[in-house]
Amino acid sequence: MPVLNPSARPVPLSPTLAINEAIARKRREGLPVLALGFGEAGVPIHPALTRELAGAAGRGAYGPVAGSAPLRAAAAGYWERRGLPTDPDLVVSGPGSKPLLFALMTAIGGEIAIPSPSWVSYAAQAAITRAGAVPVATPPGEGGVPNPALLADAVVRARAAGRAIRAVVVTLPDNPTGTLASEQTVRRLCAVAREHDLVIISDEIYRDLVHDPAARAVASPAEYAPERTVVTTALSKNLAAGGWRLGVARLPDARFGRELRERLLGIASELWSSAPAPMQHAAAFAFGEPPELVEHIDRSRRLHAAVTGAVADRFAEAGARVRAPEAAFYVYPDFGPFRERLREACGVRTGAELCGLLLERYGVGVLPASAFGEPAEALRMRVATSLLYGDTDEQRLAALTDPAPAALPWIAAGLDRLSEVLADLKTASGHALAPALAG
Amino acid sequence: MPVLNPSARPVPLSPTLAINEAIARKRREGLPVLALGFGEAGVPIHPALTRELAGAAGRGAYGPVAGSAPLRAAAAGYWERRGLPTDPDLVVSGPGSKPLLFALMTAIGGEIAIPSPSWVSYAAQAAITRAGAVPVATPPGEGGVPNPALLADAVVRARAAGRAIRAVVVTLPDNPTGTLASEQTVRRLCAVAREHDLVIISDEIYRDLVHDPAARAVASPAEYAPERTVVTTALSKNLAAGGWRLGVARLPDARFGRELRERLLGIASELWSSAPAPMQHAAAFAFGEPPELVEHIDRSRRLHAAVTGAVADRFAEAGARVRAPEAAFYVYPDFGPFRERLREACGVRTGAELCGLLLERYGVGVLPASAFGEPAEALRMRVATSLLYGDTDEQRLAALTDPAPAALPWIAAGLDRLSEVLADLKTASGHALAPALAG
Repeated sequence: MPVLNPSARPVPLSPTLAINEAIARKRREGLPVLALGFGEAGVPIHPALTRELAGAAGRGAYGPVAGSAPLRAAAAGYWERRGLPTDPDLVVSGPGSKPLLFALMTAIGGEIAIPSPSWVSYAAQAAITRAGAVPVATPPGEGGVPNPALLADAVVRARAAGRAIRAVVVTLPDNPTGTLASEQTVRRLCAVAREHDLVIISDEIYRDLVHDPAARAVASPAEYAPERTVVTTALSKNLAAGGWRLGVARLPDARFGRELRERLLGIASELWSSAPAPMQHAAAFAFGEPPELVEHIDRSRRLHAAVTGAVADRFAEAGARVRAPEAAFYVYPDFGPFRERLREACGVRTGAELCGLLLERYGVGVLPASAFGEPAEALRMRVATSLLYGDTDEQRLAALTDPAPAALPWIAAGLDRLSEVLADLKTASGHALAPALAG
Repeated sequence: MPVLNPSARPVPLSPTLAINEAIARKRREGLPVLALGFGEAGVPIHPALTRELAGAAGRGAYGPVAGSAPLRAAAAGYWERRGLPTDPDLVVSGPGSKPLLFALMTAIGGEIAIPSPSWVSYAAQAAITRAGAVPVATPPGEGGVPNPALLADAVVRARAAGRAIRAVVVTLPDNPTGTLASEQTVRRLCAVAREHDLVIISDEIYRDLVHDPAARAVASPAEYAPERTVVTTALSKNLAAGGWRLGVARLPDARFGRELRERLLGIASELWSSAPAPMQHAAAFAFGEPPELVEHIDRSRRLHAAVTGAVADRFAEAGARVRAPEAAFYVYPDFGPFRERLREACGVRTGAELCGLLLERYGVGVLPASAFGEPAEALRMRVATSLLYGDTDEQRLAALTDPAPAALPWIAAGLDRLSEVLADLKTASGHALAPALAG
């Protein structure tokens, strides 16, 4: 029989997709699950966007590798309105920002510095390129950006050991922590990148989901180090169209950016040809930011703020350490205070064991910090709140428009079930609660 | 400024996509072009398929990495009707068969044997995995399958030199030659693969476009070496939905196949998450082979047969060596007989120079054999006939239904322009013909 390359480390299923599938399996088996594992936006696609896609369904031609001219112009306008003047020729689309990030890593070459914790796929993609990632801790309370001083150290040490680090990735706002790095941290990161000649890949897929944009503006590295910053975004999070697979990258307007564009397009042409053409049409509409979509995103932002706040409160009430969420639909509580009790009563020593217990005993699906590159013993977990919003489009639409969505019966039931589980876990009774919440 | 990895060889834009974009550029400049470069199917998407996609436009969720259960079941049925019983659990979808092929190469690891000539992307993808490809000549008149005896030699030599070859890719029917390897050759290929423990990746994207399926049946390696053969196909060619980005792979029903599936899904989950959800729905409909789509594919097959035949005749009349096309929409003529004259009169020594002359002097866009891995001096070229079918959906629909499509005015004009160009090239007068054919 043929053998697979024994020296290649198998790539495990991405943890976020794996928990999504594990939860779907349990539900098919009729088990009640509180699904808090997967980073899906949890709101319906806006009808105007659906209409645009349906109207473009007959588009079967591949089109240019970089994407259609209308899509690139619309994406340029989107960035321009955020203080980032953009040449449409420096916009490249792809089937999601995920493949764009992989192609960028491949095009740049070498190891990549990533924040710790950070989104599950940066390190996994760097492993597939065989160059690998260098995790660098984030400053306290500011997820998504490596601590600039530690980054400088890591680069110097790696280079002294003969290893090439050419890039650093940042997530603004952050997944998994739901926080947003400060302008000062971003500026310092940019200074380090400039001093050490690093490309900055700024993943801004949650940019439009800062809960209070008046109080916290996103500082993009593209403002402070425009010559070396690539920005990526997509339709997946703010418009909840993850299943559409449409992302865009904005390359630096500099000679380096144009060289990188050539490399990126070559790789894109051999990996995926072009982004799906009907979605390109709908995305051009979306990046034009018509009022109905702007309002839709405003509403989803308010919904995320309300429910992440409520979820964080439940964790805090149960005694977990948790920061107030600032963006997106993630909460990142820490069960460190219960370390002793969890070990003694449940034999739980690692975050993975804790999340396994939550899933198997309580039917609560969350992801351990180790999935995001943190040490195995960290008892933090990422809680994605968006799947609380409802099981049907009717429920999700009601959640979007309700002034107090956390009080809607199905959301309140999910929150109460969470409190119940946390209380039981805290007492670490070892007795399984009867699963009380249906799907 | 940051630098790109100097040791990584840049990946050039895929030649088929590059010629497509070069032709589009010329047309925007108002220059008349006879576009014979790009492997787009040249027929409209069937309205039933468009309707299915439009109806699924609201699907925004990611879904399982492998693809939806209905899509996997429908693809299994498609293969089952072709004599390949298929477990839906061994079907994996992706955003096109192109990313699936890349992920398969990455999952298997090691160098990959490819036919010479072969589709532009196999070697390019193998280069991106950094393992590389080993080109092996095809038997005379049978494109798409490495000569089995030469393959055995190449594997033995590579392994003796300490290099790992783990797989061989075949294209049935073939791009670029438009021919179909015989059952005997496929059986011998399978025997060599078994003897040397190679995985066979059988790219069967043109399977349903054999011009005379009663006379020439596709022999899939999955029939003779089921334990080691992966089959890929997509909606791009038979249903002309290249821009939709939807492909499927069928893994071997053996322990090895299940291991490979795990690796493939891990890589897929980190490279693209899932195939676009609305397209998965439409593809489930398509792989169910409803009568209207079967008839549509029958018609497109007849159209491809008629026009490739006419194009081959024009090349033959001009004195080029050319085989009768058997499948798909490609002709692969050889200008070897004019080598001396082309060198003396036009300074043309390579296939790339010949194709450059055709594009710049005559506005005829074709791809040289070197794009498909043949030596630079080969004066063969791939001629994609499908863009002759029309510039509008009305013309293309007329071409699909006409009993003698090659006689339709716009197709006849393209053929006549081709004859005129070939006659001028043959006399190698060095005088530019006035461009006579508009777009």
